[in-house]
Formats: sequence, C-alpha cells, structure tokens
Amino acid sequence: MTGNNIQLDEHGRLKHFLTIEGLDRSLLLNILDNAESFSGVGDRAIKKVPILRGKTVANLFFEPSTRTRTTFELAAKRLSADILNLNISSSATKKGESLLDTLRTLEAMHCDMFVVRHANSGAAHFIAKHVAPHISVINGGDGRHAHPTQAMLDMFTIRRHKQDFRELRVAIIGDILHSRVARSEIHALSTLGVSEIRVIGPRTLIPRHVETLGVHVYHNMSEGLKEVDVIMMLRLQQERMRSALLPSASEYFQLYGLTEEKLALAKTDAIVMHPGPINRGIEIDSKVADSSQSVILQQVSHGIAVRMAVMALTMGHSDARAGDGDAD
Amino acid sequence: MTGNNIQLDEHGRLKHFLTIEGLDRSLLLNILDNAESFSGVGDRAIKKVPILRGKTVANLFFEPSTRTRTTFELAAKRLSADILNLNISSSATKKGESLLDTLRTLEAMHCDMFVVRHANSGAAHFIAKHVAPHISVINGGDGRHAHPTQAMLDMFTIRRHKQDFRELRVAIIGDILHSRVARSEIHALSTLGVSEIRVIGPRTLIPRHVETLGVHVYHNMSEGLKEVDVIMMLRLQQERMRSALLPSASEYFQLYGLTEEKLALAKTDAIVMHPGPINRGIEIDSKVADSSQSVILQQVSHGIAVRMAVMALTMGHSDARAGDGDAD
Amino acid sequence: MTGNNIQLDEHGRLKHFLTIEGLDRSLLLNILDNAESFSGVGDRAIKKVPILRGKTVANLFFEPSTRTRTTFELAAKRLSADILNLNISSSATKKGESLLDTLRTLEAMHCDMFVVRHANSGAAHFIAKHVAPHISVINGGDGRHAHPTQAMLDMFTIRRHKQDFRELRVAIIGDILHSRVARSEIHALSTLGVSEIRVIGPRTLIPRHVETLGVHVYHNMSEGLKEVDVIMMLRLQQERMRSALLPSASEYFQLYGLTEEKLALAKTDAIVMHPGPINRGIEIDSKVADSSQSVILQQVSHGIAVRMAVMALTMGHSDARAGDGDAD
Repeated sequence: MTGNNIQLDEHGRLKHFLTIEGLDRSLLLNILDNAESFSGVGDRAIKKVPILRGKTVANLFFEPSTRTRTTFELAAKRLSADILNLNISSSATKKGESLLDTLRTLEAMHCDMFVVRHANSGAAHFIAKHVAPHISVINGGDGRHAHPTQAMLDMFTIRRHKQDFRELRVAIIGDILHSRVARSEIHALSTLGVSEIRVIGPRTLIPRHVETLGVHVYHNMSEGLKEVDVIMMLRLQQERMRSALLPSASEYFQLYGLTEEKLALAKTDAIVMHPGPINRGIEIDSKVADSSQSVILQQVSHGIAVRMAVMALTMGHSDARAGDGDAD
Repeated sequence: MTGNNIQLDEHGRLKHFLTIEGLDRSLLLNILDNAESFSGVGDRAIKKVPILRGKTVANLFFEPSTRTRTTFELAAKRLSADILNLNISSSATKKGESLLDTLRTLEAMHCDMFVVRHANSGAAHFIAKHVAPHISVINGGDGRHAHPTQAMLDMFTIRRHKQDFRELRVAIIGDILHSRVARSEIHALSTLGVSEIRVIGPRTLIPRHVETLGVHVYHNMSEGLKEVDVIMMLRLQQERMRSALLPSASEYFQLYGLTEEKLALAKTDAIVMHPGPINRGIEIDSKVADSSQSVILQQVSHGIAVRMAVMALTMGHSDARAGDGDAD
Repeated sequence: MTGNNIQLDEHGRLKHFLTIEGLDRSLLLNILDNAESFSGVGDRAIKKVPILRGKTVANLFFEPSTRTRTTFELAAKRLSADILNLNISSSATKKGESLLDTLRTLEAMHCDMFVVRHANSGAAHFIAKHVAPHISVINGGDGRHAHPTQAMLDMFTIRRHKQDFRELRVAIIGDILHSRVARSEIHALSTLGVSEIRVIGPRTLIPRHVETLGVHVYHNMSEGLKEVDVIMMLRLQQERMRSALLPSASEYFQLYGLTEEKLALAKTDAIVMHPGPINRGIEIDSKVADSSQSVILQQVSHGIAVRMAVMALTMGHSDARAGDGDAD
C-alpha cells in the first residue's frame, strides 16, 4: 500500500497530506470517519479539544487566501494548537532567503506542522520532501495541481447526503483545465468508486486526454447533467475571462451557469456544491445557490471538521476519539 | 420594553449591541454594573476569566482601526475566547463575494460573535438582521451613526468620578456633525438622565435640528463651558480641515481647542474626556491632556472592562460574577 | 552593581533588557542558566509552561521583522502569555499620535511587557524610561545601537559548544560599523571574559576607535581567522552595496565571504555562527553554511529559549524552574 508514497509513514499511516493520488479507499474513508467524530466539536458550547495542545502550526501562505487560511486557523485553534500566520512572500524571501533556509529556520523554532499554499504545482511535495522527520505538511492548494482538503470536505459532504459512493453519478462543471479542486475531486471520487464522473465545460477549459482519468467529457449542460446525483460547480477565475479562453460572463452563464432550469435535468434529490466564494450570476444562479438542494454552506462547516481530522491524523492521533476530553 | 428592538431578545435581554437608541436606563446601568465587575480583571496577576472559552469571536473590520480593534481583541482574550481578525476589505469582497455570502460563510465556520466596524451607517444593523440566531453582533463604529461601546465606556468613566448622572451638566465639543461618538454619547447621557447636555462647535460642524435630541447648542466655548461637570472632546478628523468645513488647525485651536484658560470656566472638579487618539495642540492643549482633571487614559482601561461586559452579556452571561472563577 | 542602570530594579535584578552594556558577568550567566532550563520546553510534546499566563505582551515593531518578531511571539506563547502584534508605523502614529501617547494607551490596556524594535538608536531606552513601573521593556533591536537578545542567544550557543569563555578567541566578520548585533556581541563577549575578540572587515565598515572596546581590528581574513575558536558572521545589508561603502557582492565575497579555504585557517573545531537570514554566496559559502561546523540553525532554536528566559526574568520569575509545571 505505501510503496514510495511520500505521504505515508512506514506503517502506511498518513504523515503528510499532499494529494489524493496514491491514497487508497480505506485511507480516505478513515479520514471521513475521523472528520465525522470532529464535526460535533463545532456545535459544542466549548468548541475545543486538547489534541494538539502545545504544538505549533505554521500557516505558510505564499499565495493569499482568506477562506482556506481561516478554516485551517480555526481547525488548529479548536485542536488547541498555537498558530503562526506567516505571509511568506512579504517576509524572509523578500530579504533574499531561499525557501529551504526559511523551512530550516521554522524547523529550528520547533514548528510541528506546515500548512502550505503556493502558486507553483508541486510546492507542498517539495517542502514535504525536505522537512525534518517530525514535521507534517498539509497542502492547502498548490498551483493547478491539488487541493486535497477541499476534495475531502466535498467527499464528506456527499457522504452526509448520499449513502453509497458506488451508486453515484457526479458532474464537475466549469474550468476543469486550471482547477486544482477539480483534479483532487476526480481522484477522490474515483478512489471512492463512484459509478460515473462527468466533467462539463467549454473545449478551451477541458484538459486534453482527461478521459484517461476515467471521466466522461461533456460540452453542454443539457446532456451532462442528465440524471446526476451530485453537481460540483467550480469557481470561475475572472482572469480567464480577460484572456482569450472564455467569452463574456453573460455568455458563460447562459451556457454553463447553473440555473433552476438546468438543475431540473439532474435527479430531483441532486445536491449542488461549490468550493466558494461563489460568483452569483456567473457560474451559479442565486436561486440555485440559496435553494434547498444547495449544500454550499455545509461544505464550509465540514471543511473545519475535515481539516481537524487531517491535522490530528498526520500528527499521529488516529483513534478519532476527539470528543472524549475537553481541552484542559 | 423590547418592542421591535432588534438588539433585545424575547426576554428583553441584550442580544446584539448596535446603538444606544432604544435601550432603557436600567439596561444601560446593568452594562455599567457588569463592567464594574470586569474592571478588576485587568489588575489581576492572571488577567483572564473563562466566560467565553471555546467561543469564536470574529473581528470584522471593514474600516481600519488599531485602538478599537485592539481593545476588543484584548477583551475577547481576557474572556478566553478564540479570535479571528478579518480585514474584510482586503479579502473576500475583493474577490467579488457579497457581504451576505461572507456572513453566511463565517456562520458556517461556527463563529459566535461578530464585532463590526464599517464606513457605512447601518452596516451593523444590517448584519444583525441577517445573522443566524445564535450569533451576537457588536457595533464597533458604523459610519456617522453610532459607536455604542465608546459611549458606554464614557458613561462608565463619568460614573466613576461623579455620583449621580441626574445632577450633571455635560458639554460635547468639536465636530458633532460627523461624529458617531457624539451621537451615541448624547443618547446615553440623555437616557441616563443628565440634567443638561450641551454641544459646542462651529456652525458648519453642528447638525441642523440637533436640539430635537434635547441638547443645547453653543458656538463659543466661553459660554458653553460655564459650570459644566464633564467635558467630552471629540477627535478632529484632519480631512475636515482640507475641505471647506473648517478653517486652519491653529484657528480651530484658538476657538475650540481646550486650554487651561477655557477649562477654568468649567467647575473646578470638571473631568476632561477624549476618545483618542488625541491631536495635541489642535483640539486639546497638552497641559490639559496631561492634567489631573484629564481622565483620558482611564477611558482606555474602562474600554476593555466595558467591552468584556458587553461581550459577556450579549452571549448570555448576565450575572456579572466574572471574578469568581479563574480561566481553566 | 546597579548604579543608575535603568535595566535593573532596586535589588539589582533585571527589569528591562535593553543592552548588554552595564550588565555584569553573573547576570549574563544567570540569563544563560535560565535559558538552559527553558531550552527543554521546545522538545516536549506540550511546548508550554504557565509562567506568563494571563499576562499581555505587546510586540511593538516600528521596523518590520519576521524572524525576530516570530521568535518573540513563539517565546511568549510557550510561556502562555497573550500576544498583541502591533505594527505601529501603520497605525496610531499615522494618525499623528505621539509615541508617548501610544505607550500610555497600551499601559492603560494593562499590557505587561513591550518588545520593541525601532530604526532609531535609543528608542527602547526612551520607552523604558517612560513606561509605568509594572511594565518590562525588551529591546528587539534599535537602530545601530543594540540587539541584546541576539547577543545572548549567541553566547548561549557558544557555551553549548565551548566550555570556558575565558579561553576563547572569537572573530566577528563583516559590516561592524552598522551592526547592532556586532555591538551587543562585543559587549557580551567582553563581559564574559573571552581571551580575544577580533573584528574583521573592510576599512569602510569598521568604526573608528573600535579598539577602545578591547577588540583587535583586522582587514583581511587570512590573518584574522588564524586559530580562532568562534566565527561570528554578520548579515550584509544590501543597501550598503548600493552606496559607496562597498564594492560589488562578488568582490566582497572574495575578500570577506567565509569559504571552506578561509574556514580552514581557524581551529579545526571552530564553530560558525550567523544571525540569519544568510546571504549564500555573499557573506558565506553554501558549503560552510551547511557544514558540520555551522551552528546557525541551533542559534534559531536557542533564540526562543533565551527569549523565554529574558521574558520570565524581567517579569520576576528568576528561579528558572520553568520545567516543573505544565501549563494548566
């Protein structure tokens, strides 16, 4: 099972969390089961467990992100860890320090975990390959490569609504080409054994040879949405519109925006997902975003539980009994 | 008592703290009594009480502020809450997310309280009207509308020095027109029943029809300061000077700056207040700011006690026994 | 012993930590002994001691610094203090508030300690002279004057590798003229009684009359490094290169960069130190920086232990039993 997967320790347990690729079904299910046990913490009067008390988590954000950074910060605080928020682009690297020197310095400060977001694909892997053995690295999004905690919170949300992954037909819609979220979702859905994965988008935004990942490609919504159980919208990056890759926002909305009419093509109990923040009227109609089929806000809540689970697991707390003790 | 006051719950207890308007005397006195019980915490060896342990307070500052944000942050920390500092203007709204979507997202993260500062009058009300039922909203200053915690720390400071509100003559001096502090002070003083409220300032900086609030208008200090017990200076926004509303700083100081000579017109035991930061030599002379009659720094200390009280009360801790237990 | 040293209280105990000058050998050794007791905290599963629980530490950084601020922040967190990070240049002083008014305001918020970094020499002394009696001030670097915690972490690192200060020959290399680190190191080494202190650098970067501090001046590495036990490199400020004070980076490296060849002139067990962040290929060769003689990363770890010790000592915790109790 482990092979030379840098994410796993010698016992096949999660040490880093960098990508869904290479992780097997039982490991993904174990993350979901752990997240289930953490999801109650957010509803308690005292939203804290002492699992990472006295540990230091460094948020290394080389790319700005409020939402992802905030949920990791809350997850760490609710695990009772100490947090360092480091906006690296504006600090040491400005002084000409190399990335590796920055890492060595943070290690010397006895940090226990790095949460990394970086514009370059592979940055989190590079860091995981070079950190001291006691440190865990969690990928908070690297270039176009992967965003595995986003994919796992999506899987958690799907499992809350649909019993069995193996009976589901799932559609991912939008800019598949540039999306690390889509890549990680496809790997997770595939590993969990869904019956069919579809990607829907304009030709310019679908990667070539994506079929090799086991997905079916659609260029129009009326065909692609037919009978699906789960609709996963992607966020449209405004930059794409300015380039030649996309027509105007209104034309995009007409073709690929999720409206009530298009939603009606899916199963009547289909759920609608989006990683946020949503662009109302561009990739999704407000009525759909606020409808009873939308689980977008549940995704946010689940994001904290899933991140708590991943942080706890990579730090060696694998028994999921998060709920037993209160933080001292 | 409650009517349709959005600030109160169905039992007439403080749920949000948005404005002094509509709150009755006993409720204001209850805040002051609670603040009294919290004011000792700052003097303890261990400046912490466990009242909001495991709660998440989000500081939503759409307008920059070091002093107000810092005192709310300290108040929350001393109540043992976890704090999220969100500089919203630079985050999600830049990505085009609407304010309501930001609120829903923070709710989904299980935040318990929003402290809001915003350039638009009514922003805190808008947010309070739309948040989930378990969340409390505290107004940290909205446009020209209200700054209720500032007003209450001022009331607390006055009560520490003067026995009975009902025997006091109070003067508020400066740019009344643009001041949310002045508005909230007038409502608080009026509700607490002071015998006379005066506003003093140039015609361009006094709102029309301000007399309907029950205040007396003066355009010169020698008349307005006569026999007053409390002098509340306002901070002069430098922007006003650049516009046509005000003459030069030196001319303003000559007319409305508080000097020792002008102070002598008030009662000999009059106290001098200012919300800070002070502009020495513009609205107040250094000798006065540093004199024994100045209570400006006491206001800062009381600001933390009052904010602790408001945070505790809106979260349902109304028995004021903050001092009994140490944070665990 | 105390005289009129503002750093010491009436019993000769450390109250502020502003400069090494004026502190005697036993006091420096006491800091090192305390740091020794704190150095184990970073290796524990729960990296926390309750010594400063409920205290408020304000990081007043008038000059940006990630590394120093981060280590002070971690030190404070591991002592269980609450931290306020204030980037002063961008806050109150922008509004025209004077430094003293800012200090008074922070005092009124019941802060217990100020960690100060400022571009002006003497800023920390000025603040220490004016704060309320219960507040301790720690100099995190002021202008060209002093950086005493850096010097003490360097002494700590030397003591870990070399038994007796009195038998050591130490060389400090680089821009002595502009370096507060060099100044503080010279005072510390001198007070601890090392047998010889050498400074090595181009004439333009050695202060005149530096010999009066008891150091020997060298302008070339081959003479200066002969038989030394400790090599303390300084960071080269790129600004110096742009001015007329220095030739190009490559010429500087040829003359004063620490290479394996030059290192071979020192004793075979000489240690190599650097305050970081390092400029590889400018003041130090990568092979040397990463060699077994380099203790640069140990300096970072020791920096946290030393800062914990200084923070505890100035707050009156002088018995060094940091390790006995866990934070509650």
